[in-house]
Amino acid sequence: MNPDPDYSAAYVVLRADDGHEGHGFTFTIGRGNDICCAAIEALSEHVIGTDVDGPAGLGDLYRRLTHDSQIRWLGPEKGVMHLAAAAIVNAAWDLASRRAGLPLWRYLSALTPEEVVACVDWRYLSDALTPDEALAILRAAEPGRAERVAELERDGYPAYTTSPGWLGYSDEKVVRLAREAVAEGYTQIKLKVGADLEDDRRRFAAAREAVGPDVRIAVDANQRWDVAEAIAWTSALAEFDPWWIEEPTSPDDILGHAAIRKALSPIKVATGEHVHNRVMFKQLLQAGAVDFVQIDSARVAGVNENLAILLLAAKFGVPVCPHAGGVGLCELVRHLSMFDYTSVSASLDDRVIEFVDHLHEHFLDPAVVKGGRYLAPAAPGYSAEMKRESLQRYAYPDGPEWSGNA
Amino acid sequence: MNPDPDYSAAYVVLRADDGHEGHGFTFTIGRGNDICCAAIEALSEHVIGTDVDGPAGLGDLYRRLTHDSQIRWLGPEKGVMHLAAAAIVNAAWDLASRRAGLPLWRYLSALTPEEVVACVDWRYLSDALTPDEALAILRAAEPGRAERVAELERDGYPAYTTSPGWLGYSDEKVVRLAREAVAEGYTQIKLKVGADLEDDRRRFAAAREAVGPDVRIAVDANQRWDVAEAIAWTSALAEFDPWWIEEPTSPDDILGHAAIRKALSPIKVATGEHVHNRVMFKQLLQAGAVDFVQIDSARVAGVNENLAILLLAAKFGVPVCPHAGGVGLCELVRHLSMFDYTSVSASLDDRVIEFVDHLHEHFLDPAVVKGGRYLAPAAPGYSAEMKRESLQRYAYPDGPEWSGNA
Repeated sequence: MNPDPDYSAAYVVLRADDGHEGHGFTFTIGRGNDICCAAIEALSEHVIGTDVDGPAGLGDLYRRLTHDSQIRWLGPEKGVMHLAAAAIVNAAWDLASRRAGLPLWRYLSALTPEEVVACVDWRYLSDALTPDEALAILRAAEPGRAERVAELERDGYPAYTTSPGWLGYSDEKVVRLAREAVAEGYTQIKLKVGADLEDDRRRFAAAREAVGPDVRIAVDANQRWDVAEAIAWTSALAEFDPWWIEEPTSPDDILGHAAIRKALSPIKVATGEHVHNRVMFKQLLQAGAVDFVQIDSARVAGVNENLAILLLAAKFGVPVCPHAGGVGLCELVRHLSMFDYTSVSASLDDRVIEFVDHLHEHFLDPAVVKGGRYLAPAAPGYSAEMKRESLQRYAYPDGPEWSGNA
Repeated sequence: MNPDPDYSAAYVVLRADDGHEGHGFTFTIGRGNDICCAAIEALSEHVIGTDVDGPAGLGDLYRRLTHDSQIRWLGPEKGVMHLAAAAIVNAAWDLASRRAGLPLWRYLSALTPEEVVACVDWRYLSDALTPDEALAILRAAEPGRAERVAELERDGYPAYTTSPGWLGYSDEKVVRLAREAVAEGYTQIKLKVGADLEDDRRRFAAAREAVGPDVRIAVDANQRWDVAEAIAWTSALAEFDPWWIEEPTSPDDILGHAAIRKALSPIKVATGEHVHNRVMFKQLLQAGAVDFVQIDSARVAGVNENLAILLLAAKFGVPVCPHAGGVGLCELVRHLSMFDYTSVSASLDDRVIEFVDHLHEHFLDPAVVKGGRYLAPAAPGYSAEMKRESLQRYAYPDGPEWSGNA
């Protein structure tokens, strides 16, 4: 489905009068990145000259960006404008947590339940989750929160790796990378599927034989199938014990995912990297359509909207396993999962963050996985800042990588 | 919800080597219109230098625009990029029907069932409607098609008017405009609701008394409510016999609409002007969430995607009553409803096209309503072309209306 990605990001820097900066971005796979930049410029009137510090200010900023009545017509809360809002909201949280001298996950973990609830846009959610129910979830997680912070700083958070399973790898490469992943400490890997069933069966069989029965192998179809095809294809892989089927069909198809999940049980269903907002996640949960919620740090409108999704998932008892990879998504989502553990779900059961080992070299505070676990970030902020050299070299269209002067 | 609309359009002109032109646009309410223009520029590489004539070529163009793998990441099929695709696709159909010397609705009505089916993107639809089922629907409508074309040319298509019911009008003005509408031949009007319940009750009571029990009065909440509020508020208006409640909540909330419809029956539920694609309409129908499908000519990806939605609605037996107003939406949607009557549903039962009487003066082939019915357009094309003087005068940012030289 994504045959020629050209990993890109629309990048935002907020500069505050006190000298602090906030960095944020949204991720794209090439064409259209400049349209996201134009959308960020259009939204900047809601940011420039305003105070965005503190959770109340961050909630106000998020609502201004997503409820601008004329901009809302272009969505609401979806597509290019929402990606642009994500970049700005993420930069504002980076700024706020830098000012506080804390990594974002610790900054979030230090908020009161009331402050967290004030960051959420509750419109359209009350049939599934009310602010009072959210307060109850957050208060129930307060006991033990300090211990879980310490545990994350000591042990990190479980990861899984997609590196062995890209389409186009030879069987030998899949087997070698799968064995290496297990040797590195991963207990879950992921394979891409959906191009050719016989190829999928052969690769999956080889991978399963390589890692044995106890390592979880998820499969990912990247939206390739209609409902019946998703059921038939995944059933044809069942003998190799897939842990979850990811993005079996359109990310908009709530009822389709529900039908697929019902037909494939006990194989689990995961989706979320293209689910465009909190109202869609609400329905995926209401419909019993997913076993795992895969939040994305930059598709919905940044930290605030992900707080709503974490709370919705907790209400329905569904684990959150973030989508990562791309440019900088690993750097960001680790903060959200760690906050989920300290303050929302208070559980690591069946929870893993995706890890893809590329492009981390461009970030000042890169994601680090050791022994199959994400280490807890310690530097202040949301880890969104790219190295100045990378920003200059790859800037489109005038950076040396594009202008031919590299 | 839309307190300060500044009606705008991103406007496309395709120029063919044979001298023909195709005009198309997408509608916005102000800010963000320039982002739609940038998105159209980005998509233009799929159009310039290609042949887009004939239904097969139009199907190919539509799929190129919506399946560009890098652009698809920004959606898929939603938001700014999808609005941009709508403008281009609409322009391509304008060009094709001008070349054929037919108004679009007659051009569509002359296609074979196979040609119509080839215009649709069937991915993700097969659990609700297959190409074979669509062919059967279209073939079943072939008998009597010529008579229905002649009937439309003679009698037009039923309309309803939103003009009496804008928020902010005095009760006296609502009553006067409602009476005028009935005197002009309308059998359905619409009132905006949702700002203040006592105001709504008073205005609705006055309008009902003015028009009597036999004129249908629809109410429109423009997405203001959560599910429970939608049910309570609309129930508090039930004594005045609302025909439908339109956009009671988020356009993304399929399950919310289903819950509202179930609770409010026999009051009917309508939505669609912000429903972003065919997968969402599919689910609204599968979930039994709507009594009326309100297609929009420029929110989904133009004519092709609306063909899919008309066929889905026919499969589920749900009437299509297009959203109109804005800039040029009345001009466009009449073609789609007339094709629905000649070739898909073959029915006028409970079907009406919205009419709002403004901005028609800018179009070369403006919508005309007489006796409460849209007259059938006769000029070749999709009626999308604006007058050259209007395009120049209101061009942003250099036209005299913007530059202060008007």
